[in-house]
Amino acid sequence: MQLKAKIRPLNPLLYRNIVAEALAEDLGRGGDLTTDSIVPAGLEARGRIFARRTGVAAGIDLAVETFRRLDPEFEVLERVEDGSNLDPGTSLLRFRGRAAPILTAERVALNFLGALCGVATLTRRFVDAIEGSSASILDTRKTTPGLRALEKYAVRCGGGVNHRMGLDDAILIKDNHIIAAGGVGGAMEAVRRNAPHTVKIEIEVDTLEQLKEALDFDPDIILLDNMAPAQLRQAVELINGRAISEASGGISLETAAEIASTGVDFLSVGALTHSAPALDLSLELESL
Amino acid sequence: MQLKAKIRPLNPLLYRNIVAEALAEDLGRGGDLTTDSIVPAGLEARGRIFARRTGVAAGIDLAVETFRRLDPEFEVLERVEDGSNLDPGTSLLRFRGRAAPILTAERVALNFLGALCGVATLTRRFVDAIEGSSASILDTRKTTPGLRALEKYAVRCGGGVNHRMGLDDAILIKDNHIIAAGGVGGAMEAVRRNAPHTVKIEIEVDTLEQLKEALDFDPDIILLDNMAPAQLRQAVELINGRAISEASGGISLETAAEIASTGVDFLSVGALTHSAPALDLSLELESL
Amino acid sequence: MQLKAKIRPLNPLLYRNIVAEALAEDLGRGGDLTTDSIVPAGLEARGRIFARRTGVAAGIDLAVETFRRLDPEFEVLERVEDGSNLDPGTSLLRFRGRAAPILTAERVALNFLGALCGVATLTRRFVDAIEGSSASILDTRKTTPGLRALEKYAVRCGGGVNHRMGLDDAILIKDNHIIAAGGVGGAMEAVRRNAPHTVKIEIEVDTLEQLKEALDFDPDIILLDNMAPAQLRQAVELINGRAISEASGGISLETAAEIASTGVDFLSVGALTHSAPALDLSLELESL
Amino acid sequence: MQLKAKIRPLNPLLYRNIVAEALAEDLGRGGDLTTDSIVPAGLEARGRIFARRTGVAAGIDLAVETFRRLDPEFEVLERVEDGSNLDPGTSLLRFRGRAAPILTAERVALNFLGALCGVATLTRRFVDAIEGSSASILDTRKTTPGLRALEKYAVRCGGGVNHRMGLDDAILIKDNHIIAAGGVGGAMEAVRRNAPHTVKIEIEVDTLEQLKEALDFDPDIILLDNMAPAQLRQAVELINGRAISEASGGISLETAAEIASTGVDFLSVGALTHSAPALDLSLELESL
Amino acid sequence: MQLKAKIRPLNPLLYRNIVAEALAEDLGRGGDLTTDSIVPAGLEARGRIFARRTGVAAGIDLAVETFRRLDPEFEVLERVEDGSNLDPGTSLLRFRGRAAPILTAERVALNFLGALCGVATLTRRFVDAIEGSSASILDTRKTTPGLRALEKYAVRCGGGVNHRMGLDDAILIKDNHIIAAGGVGGAMEAVRRNAPHTVKIEIEVDTLEQLKEALDFDPDIILLDNMAPAQLRQAVELINGRAISEASGGISLETAAEIASTGVDFLSVGALTHSAPALDLSLELESL
Amino acid sequence: MQLKAKIRPLNPLLYRNIVAEALAEDLGRGGDLTTDSIVPAGLEARGRIFARRTGVAAGIDLAVETFRRLDPEFEVLERVEDGSNLDPGTSLLRFRGRAAPILTAERVALNFLGALCGVATLTRRFVDAIEGSSASILDTRKTTPGLRALEKYAVRCGGGVNHRMGLDDAILIKDNHIIAAGGVGGAMEAVRRNAPHTVKIEIEVDTLEQLKEALDFDPDIILLDNMAPAQLRQAVELINGRAISEASGGISLETAAEIASTGVDFLSVGALTHSAPALDLSLELESL
Repeated sequence: MQLKAKIRPLNPLLYRNIVAEALAEDLGRGGDLTTDSIVPAGLEARGRIFARRTGVAAGIDLAVETFRRLDPEFEVLERVEDGSNLDPGTSLLRFRGRAAPILTAERVALNFLGALCGVATLTRRFVDAIEGSSASILDTRKTTPGLRALEKYAVRCGGGVNHRMGLDDAILIKDNHIIAAGGVGGAMEAVRRNAPHTVKIEIEVDTLEQLKEALDFDPDIILLDNMAPAQLRQAVELINGRAISEASGGISLETAAEIASTGVDFLSVGALTHSAPALDLSLELESL
Repeated sequence: MQLKAKIRPLNPLLYRNIVAEALAEDLGRGGDLTTDSIVPAGLEARGRIFARRTGVAAGIDLAVETFRRLDPEFEVLERVEDGSNLDPGTSLLRFRGRAAPILTAERVALNFLGALCGVATLTRRFVDAIEGSSASILDTRKTTPGLRALEKYAVRCGGGVNHRMGLDDAILIKDNHIIAAGGVGGAMEAVRRNAPHTVKIEIEVDTLEQLKEALDFDPDIILLDNMAPAQLRQAVELINGRAISEASGGISLETAAEIASTGVDFLSVGALTHSAPALDLSLELESL
Repeated sequence: MQLKAKIRPLNPLLYRNIVAEALAEDLGRGGDLTTDSIVPAGLEARGRIFARRTGVAAGIDLAVETFRRLDPEFEVLERVEDGSNLDPGTSLLRFRGRAAPILTAERVALNFLGALCGVATLTRRFVDAIEGSSASILDTRKTTPGLRALEKYAVRCGGGVNHRMGLDDAILIKDNHIIAAGGVGGAMEAVRRNAPHTVKIEIEVDTLEQLKEALDFDPDIILLDNMAPAQLRQAVELINGRAISEASGGISLETAAEIASTGVDFLSVGALTHSAPALDLSLELESL
Repeated sequence: MQLKAKIRPLNPLLYRNIVAEALAEDLGRGGDLTTDSIVPAGLEARGRIFARRTGVAAGIDLAVETFRRLDPEFEVLERVEDGSNLDPGTSLLRFRGRAAPILTAERVALNFLGALCGVATLTRRFVDAIEGSSASILDTRKTTPGLRALEKYAVRCGGGVNHRMGLDDAILIKDNHIIAAGGVGGAMEAVRRNAPHTVKIEIEVDTLEQLKEALDFDPDIILLDNMAPAQLRQAVELINGRAISEASGGISLETAAEIASTGVDFLSVGALTHSAPALDLSLELESL
Repeated sequence: MQLKAKIRPLNPLLYRNIVAEALAEDLGRGGDLTTDSIVPAGLEARGRIFARRTGVAAGIDLAVETFRRLDPEFEVLERVEDGSNLDPGTSLLRFRGRAAPILTAERVALNFLGALCGVATLTRRFVDAIEGSSASILDTRKTTPGLRALEKYAVRCGGGVNHRMGLDDAILIKDNHIIAAGGVGGAMEAVRRNAPHTVKIEIEVDTLEQLKEALDFDPDIILLDNMAPAQLRQAVELINGRAISEASGGISLETAAEIASTGVDFLSVGALTHSAPALDLSLELESL
Repeated sequence: MQLKAKIRPLNPLLYRNIVAEALAEDLGRGGDLTTDSIVPAGLEARGRIFARRTGVAAGIDLAVETFRRLDPEFEVLERVEDGSNLDPGTSLLRFRGRAAPILTAERVALNFLGALCGVATLTRRFVDAIEGSSASILDTRKTTPGLRALEKYAVRCGGGVNHRMGLDDAILIKDNHIIAAGGVGGAMEAVRRNAPHTVKIEIEVDTLEQLKEALDFDPDIILLDNMAPAQLRQAVELINGRAISEASGGISLETAAEIASTGVDFLSVGALTHSAPALDLSLELESL
């Protein structure tokens, strides 16, 4: 599969503290009462994490980091690449290490991995739904607080494309900004005057009239919000390559293909990160 | 509705840093380029956050805290209580304040609120599904890294009951612990010897044989994992009030009622926190 | 001695940051002016930490972590196990490493070790004082701010048992809670309704009347506060195995044996963590 | 009493984070299960914190900060000054506020206050023991990890004097430094060459011979370690005002007066901070 | 002057922690020994901060935040706007408050203000140097570690324009990237394939040949590195409005005007943030 | 050159977090979009950092730490010692490692190194300017917020001497303190009464009259502020070795030699840390 080659990596500095804090959240002040009471410190184990459902891998480095925090000697024997398709039973990771820290870290590792594979899996379903079109699937800022960089990486693993990471890396003018500025023109001029030339300017429009008005000010990207397919088609014609176009508003797996067929460049899907069910994964110790 | 009266509150110290970090994640190094470029600092606004779908409120204090971090003068005009039922159009919060910080904080506030209302809503659906039974709905440690205390609070808002908060506030002996200890007896004795008397001891069993073995050691709670309803019924009879019983393993809205009818005390549902879709909410500025 | 085998370990994640902050507190902004001015970077040393008084070892891993933070090559040559008895002159740790970081870390390492051995030593004295009884020695939440997990571990090293780690891992109903709830019954019902079934419920009583009232509500644990031995004996009879019993209130090394002889399960001793004198330890460089 | 007027204050920036972390340590992830389950949010209370034993007040601001973190409306009605003498029954603080946060914060507030009053109380006993001499009582770096600034403040409240705060605000040349430098002269020259002229230079000596050698290099302060009173007297004569003198080594309440009578300027007492028992304090709600 | 109206504000969330840490750095563990020893707590003062040299104001909010951290009652009587021109003697801030915290915070407040006014002042000198041209002055990522958002704000106060805030908000392809990709085409294709469509793509070229090659791939911005004015002029002609142009490489106040006259859109000046001398400011207490 | 031998080292604990935060500041939430999109993960490189101008090396350990945070395998092949003189073209560091993390860390590493070499270089110029005198060059607390320990180390690398690190490691009585205390005598007595005997006492005087008054109270150090050379000479005579003398106030490379010739012990130069231009450095990949 070609997709894997395209995944821009996630810098480990972006998740190390998050992993440490997630472990601290689970360990509390007392640590793993059960494992610490029962499992001998020296006991070794081999095991694997595998999928119980069809899905897409994302975040294996985070799982490994979780185990390594508790046992620097934790050893990876085999792993799939993030972005790989998973069938029920597919191993994501085979490993060897001390049993006690593995059992202590298990839940946190699976919580990360299940959540990120879940995002990647839902993304892949949207990507597949619009296959054959020229459009791409886009995420949003509707992410889980604290996990944005991770979830956006998982979107990439699923074959999606990232929209801006936050409020400071692109301009997105929405309806309230337009009202505050007294109109599209006022808003566009304000951002050209005040924002750096290194960031792109995107504007959200609800109607074709607003679209025409916006086009006069030459935005880089236009977000076509809540338009029906027919209207989207007209919008794409009006834009005519002068700006990148994104469609947003309640796009589902059922409606994605039709929307993609209108010629828009991107379909923006908040659900990728705010409503993806976790992928069902299990950790199994093969020898103990 | 009586449920609201029962919700144990969430101490603000448990979410203040989380809100601050979520805002920092969205503001990045540059802040809100769009709003800062367009919206005059002195502009005032009134507005509300409302539900677009049926659901249950949870986390309104977090939304308020998010706005207040950016504007200490942000004023709440009206709000529902967490745990309230929401219909499409119901306002969760009416407010007044400066427009610029409201627009900057909007997405983070909605991300928290949408996620927590989502958890509460799914919980309520499970609670409703087993209405009439003597069982309660239980969450798990399958929570979003960094948000456990918040998600567990949202479960309470939905009418669910919290299982342990982490590895240190109750004993839960699972299959690998039993293997490591060389049997149920070894594991139970190890925890009695090593763990504080102030924590309860729970043990997971897969079969009625294991259950019988476990009962000999007088655990406080027994987790009946992946048992069919008929088997659960037998297990409940075997336990016969000597321990609290929990059923777990792929419990869905479809199967919950039947499982609850077996007489188990609790149904453990990981999906409450790992797979609840966000509740669809909107922020609307009524005057600007 | 058998005790050592029973000590539940302290997860390194629970002290790494504490060690780092303690070093930062001592280094300030300028570092170790004396050592940095005098001791050549390459100078190697061997040395040991030994006890000047009789006591019990606790926290050797923290001392090692302190040295390793400043010199990852710091090498442990020999060490006793936490929980071991120490005589004047007994080495806790023999080591080899660079002299400069050893001298810089010395005070912080000894501050941790002296404090934790002090807690373990006082605990052991109480444990010894009630030898032959069926009771155990219990710590409290009267710990040094920031060091609770460490001090509770030291209590375990001394042969004591930990009470709850904080406000969230067990219920403890005290007099003011009872007043606020309008009585024992109101308080017990409120916690049963609002608190998770995974935590135990303990209630404090001052009189036999209160005890009888409490027993009607079937608490897991009863704290018998400030009762004289005779009264304690009656209380134990009244409880008659229906709940775990703890005695508290000014228990000293002088009174412990008599209290233990009343049949209570636990003696709760705040002094273990709030008033244990540090064990007198020294670091000696044997070759420089 | 005059002492109070001399107490150099503790900047609130030096304890705010420490208080916040201590509360977090006690609240864990779940908060105060007992109070949150029982005490109505709106219930008001008045109360006080009082001493059960004779002692010296220190750290009342920290107690107030602890309550205010949980309830910004917490109101102080009356308080003593830090440094005041306390008799059994003396109120340190009278207050009014919401009952729930007061009960939640109670233990943490008392832990700080008990520990700091304990340090102040022991310090005052040493100060009283040497009354009439020209010497002062000095603390050391043998402090509780994380609490040094607080404990050193408590020493001041007790009438003691602070030695250096850490490794970077004064030079203290000890035996191992002398060995590493090849002698007293080498060590003194190294620090003069390498350390800032803004810090004082202190050197520890064990014998009169070492003292004579040290005096040739004109140190600011000389630490006379483990010398008997007769030897100390000779040392003071030898120093003859050319340096400040400190005596250290196992100084107890029994031996302090004799040591002070030798003419040394300071008596260094590690026990002030590593072995002071907490002062026994209680919080009492007067109306609920 | 019009410039002031254009300054995009600095969100307080972006500097609050930085101010707190700077105060902590100066207070150390012991606080302000001098002020705490001398200045009575209740003493009030009025004063001002004024410029000793000609310059531009930037960062007054940070100075105010610094004082408020130590005294929430600190009152601003009068202040200039950031971006204002300052003559020797001009007051930036007039204030009233308690003398002790003002003296304690003085140095930190002035360190922030002096540094940021310094950046704004140097920026303004460059802006003035190219007045009359169509070019703007641009900053770089050559900022002081930890202070990027602040220094970039100061650049805006001086009339400059911000380049990207970090590695994640725009693409900038440099020579080593081109080598690693095997050429301009490979690099441009890689970023188009892997980077979000919401970020702009900039490429650095050293020669007109490279420029022509780059233009084939339609970058948003071209950085013309180390080109002489004549070459720059040719480059601008070649670009011919198809991309934004930036000149970089040793641009000084002497050479800026000539470079600006070549028609480039931006002059990139690292010195704005890595080599701006602090503006000489003083704090004066007018009444004490 | 002898200077190098005298440089007191910088403890790595004092900069590790600063390096991590500087990388986080540059990576933002998205990481290095350019490098991550273009440079293959496995690509190896060799390279060097070299000076483009004459200067003095300082902070090479920080640059190495920056690279190692992103690639623990980063290998140093050759390096100069901090404090070494650099000519245009001199390599500070030769290294080998993976190309991607080197390119990602390049700017942060150079920002640290350029700033610290800049401080060391300016310091060395002042040191050279007063060569032959008995005076030394001194830094101040006019440092960049967050970087004080680093900048003071760079001053040492340049041959300068550090003044106090912060408000808590020496007393410095300034004019406002004198006013608040009602005179020199009141201020000196207050600090003797309230501040530890382990810190030195410095007082700032503006006139010879003030100097005489101050000398009566036997301060350790006297800061002669804004005195002309003739006046300084008289001051030095008056002091006559009874205190260390420092001159401050607008000392420049032009005036330093004359001031040094007055016999003062130290020249205090704020510009060393608040106005040193960065040293111009480059990173060059020699093989890729």
